[in-house]
Amino acid sequence: MKNITLDVKGMTCGHCKGAVNGALTELEGVDNVEVSLETGKVDVSFDESKVDQAKLKEAVEEQGYDVV
Amino acid sequence: MKNITLDVKGMTCGHCKGAVNGALTELEGVDNVEVSLETGKVDVSFDESKVDQAKLKEAVEEQGYDVV
Repeated sequence: MKNITLDVKGMTCGHCKGAVNGALTELEGVDNVEVSLETGKVDVSFDESKVDQAKLKEAVEEQGYDVV
Repeated sequence: MKNITLDVKGMTCGHCKGAVNGALTELEGVDNVEVSLETGKVDVSFDESKVDQAKLKEAVEEQGYDVV
């Protein structure tokens, strides 16, 4: 299991938090997601054999947020 | 049909807009809803014989926003 932190811009409310959390959690290989609205940091732990950082980033961007 | 404008606090993003819009639109008697994120103003047209302003306010508050 690998842990990374994504730096996400534009999350403003609980709905945003839920959208990002949901999009990441539903990816196969993602084990745990923690979203902080205050910092914009999204901690993700995932199985590197099933998903990679590029796919995580893509899932967040598809919800309308920038990953910096 | 009656038209009112609710002054809603705390809507920050498109999800908030959608939540408020959806909660009002699904009320029986509500004809049209327009939400402005920039101003927080929510224009609602509704049938006074089916729904009243108190119920509109309640529906918005149930989504977690204050109506001032």
